[in-house]
Amino acid sequence: MAEDDFKVTPWEVTGKVDYERLIQQFGTQKITPDLLREISRFSGEKMHVMLRRNIFFSHRDLDLIIKDYKNGNGFFLYTGRAPSLGMHIGHLVPFLFTKWLQDIFDVNVYIEITDDEKFMRNQDYTLEQTSEWAHQNILDIIAVGFNPEKTFIFKDTEYIKNMYPLVTSIAKKLNFSQIKATFGMDASSNIGILFYPAIQIFPTMFEKKRCLIPAAIDQDPYWRLQRDLAESLGFYKAAEIHSKFLPPLTGSDGKMSSSIPESAVYLSDSPKTVEKKIMKYAFSGGQATTELQRSLGADLKVDVPYQWLFYIFEDDDSAIQRIANEYSTGKMLTGEIKKILAQKVNQLLEEHRKKRERSEELYSKFLYDGKLAKQMWEKIHSG
Amino acid sequence: MAEDDFKVTPWEVTGKVDYERLIQQFGTQKITPDLLREISRFSGEKMHVMLRRNIFFSHRDLDLIIKDYKNGNGFFLYTGRAPSLGMHIGHLVPFLFTKWLQDIFDVNVYIEITDDEKFMRNQDYTLEQTSEWAHQNILDIIAVGFNPEKTFIFKDTEYIKNMYPLVTSIAKKLNFSQIKATFGMDASSNIGILFYPAIQIFPTMFEKKRCLIPAAIDQDPYWRLQRDLAESLGFYKAAEIHSKFLPPLTGSDGKMSSSIPESAVYLSDSPKTVEKKIMKYAFSGGQATTELQRSLGADLKVDVPYQWLFYIFEDDDSAIQRIANEYSTGKMLTGEIKKILAQKVNQLLEEHRKKRERSEELYSKFLYDGKLAKQMWEKIHSG
Repeated sequence: MAEDDFKVTPWEVTGKVDYERLIQQFGTQKITPDLLREISRFSGEKMHVMLRRNIFFSHRDLDLIIKDYKNGNGFFLYTGRAPSLGMHIGHLVPFLFTKWLQDIFDVNVYIEITDDEKFMRNQDYTLEQTSEWAHQNILDIIAVGFNPEKTFIFKDTEYIKNMYPLVTSIAKKLNFSQIKATFGMDASSNIGILFYPAIQIFPTMFEKKRCLIPAAIDQDPYWRLQRDLAESLGFYKAAEIHSKFLPPLTGSDGKMSSSIPESAVYLSDSPKTVEKKIMKYAFSGGQATTELQRSLGADLKVDVPYQWLFYIFEDDDSAIQRIANEYSTGKMLTGEIKKILAQKVNQLLEEHRKKRERSEELYSKFLYDGKLAKQMWEKIHSG
Repeated sequence: MAEDDFKVTPWEVTGKVDYERLIQQFGTQKITPDLLREISRFSGEKMHVMLRRNIFFSHRDLDLIIKDYKNGNGFFLYTGRAPSLGMHIGHLVPFLFTKWLQDIFDVNVYIEITDDEKFMRNQDYTLEQTSEWAHQNILDIIAVGFNPEKTFIFKDTEYIKNMYPLVTSIAKKLNFSQIKATFGMDASSNIGILFYPAIQIFPTMFEKKRCLIPAAIDQDPYWRLQRDLAESLGFYKAAEIHSKFLPPLTGSDGKMSSSIPESAVYLSDSPKTVEKKIMKYAFSGGQATTELQRSLGADLKVDVPYQWLFYIFEDDDSAIQRIANEYSTGKMLTGEIKKILAQKVNQLLEEHRKKRERSEELYSKFLYDGKLAKQMWEKIHSG
């Protein structure tokens, strides 16, 4: 496979990602069966589907997180979101998984809304837009069901005051060459975007404990910078647990993109739209005719409906096994697996929308006056 | 004169500055007698010594400021300070002049304390240091006597929250190439310092009026950037009035430097120290012996005591004329002019110290709860 068959940066994922090679490129660790066994000591009988199915597949220092937890030192969780016009199913992955970790370990969660980054990275966006998107996205995140007393959701443009002193300490340790080499910036990059990594790195230092970041692996470059400088500022190197990308509906390369609406299912899509999108656009590994499918069966490796079921929507191991068997041997047809997926997706979206109705009511708890949020607003971080 | 006989950047002033050539290099305007006459219509009989003596010698759009004032559109003043361990006489120049302008025009004054810049520019400084220096410098600035209801003094690290949204809009319009070309930064510059110009530029947009910045001419590169982008954000190009540098005690090249303590008189220097510094270190244009001085007289162009009297300390035109005559013709000796200066400096410092005793008491008015300060804390700037 040629070096440039795929590309993974915080802003772009193209090609068929070879996750084994990515682990080598990025210098991260595979999540081993031993490590999974360790986690299962705390999670009880049932591991999260995304761990069982290896969607979260790579890590840094996850073993140390478990150790700190066992020692009683504890840890905290940090993830985030660059606000966009609408959130799609793929955007939910880190939040669903982070919520599961919070439930198991009962730890603090910090969720950064990078409205500043979104605005500065895109010439066309206005602050009014990114601010409205931030609000809507936060309502979706709240609907995931985090503990409101132990979760702090913050917008960079608002929380900057409390962060800025320590952000300057981080900025002082990063120069243009490093940012250029890490993110591929160049001399035409604006100074806001050059400065921004200091802001994304900072929340890893919210507590004097180890920080675990559940996020897609494209964010790893930030954490590499963090790990180079954290100890010199008196903080821990951040630990990460990295996910793969949920494949776009239209094919298994790259990731879902807001600029190709049919590639994604949005949290606001109606049941009819979901059904239409999946039936019409979902890339199939099934055969061209019913006859061929009955005799040859589907290629699961490229079949998007199967992968979506596997990644998120079919939690039940024996059920997914049955689908895999029937579909790959031709007992199940493309139209049938698509219907199963559409039903599962609509079920999740319906529950999500129901929970989202309470989000406005919980908004100020998560952002300003829940127990953790209140503590965070009272604290000016300076090292 | 060779191209590199002198150098003026926001961080470095070396050599004997040729101010005529600097006006051409920077593309600014001379302050003409016509413009001075315009100002004198508002200042009444007596122009500020720094205008009469041409210490403030260059400008951009000062004519438009006067026009806006006459039209009733008004304007506002903005200046600032990078905090340092101690302030010296030279540091007072822009503040003394800005106060005079406030007295005459009765306008708002904004004073930015760039504690973030100071910290990020110097590897050795800690935030605790720059924050303590900021506090002490603010007490000195308050002692200058600004109107506490119409003056807002703010530290970047504190006021960033209210500024950040619009700061990101400025940052988005400046790229690494421009910052490099304007300030001579390079790839080893840290990302905090690369971002910083957006923060220094921002207060020029505190009001939808024209902003006049009294400052030494070395700050001009910031305003050139500001003038390139202000109108695209819906604000005015900043107007400036530029001062020369008060020459260091030890010679008339460059500017006073905190790293050479004998080159400057600090606001905290005791009367004895002041006298000793001036008698011992002040570079003299007088002759080597009393006899030679009596017959040849002093060279005023290189004589620092004369220049300090001329720039700041001898407000009376006939008195400075008399000193010039007597000293340049040998009627006055070096020791005599130094004594005159020491006395004048100590007089100013004594008054300053007296006024500074009330500064702590006025501190919260200027920073938080005076009329203007209060308004500024209530406002989130977003364009």
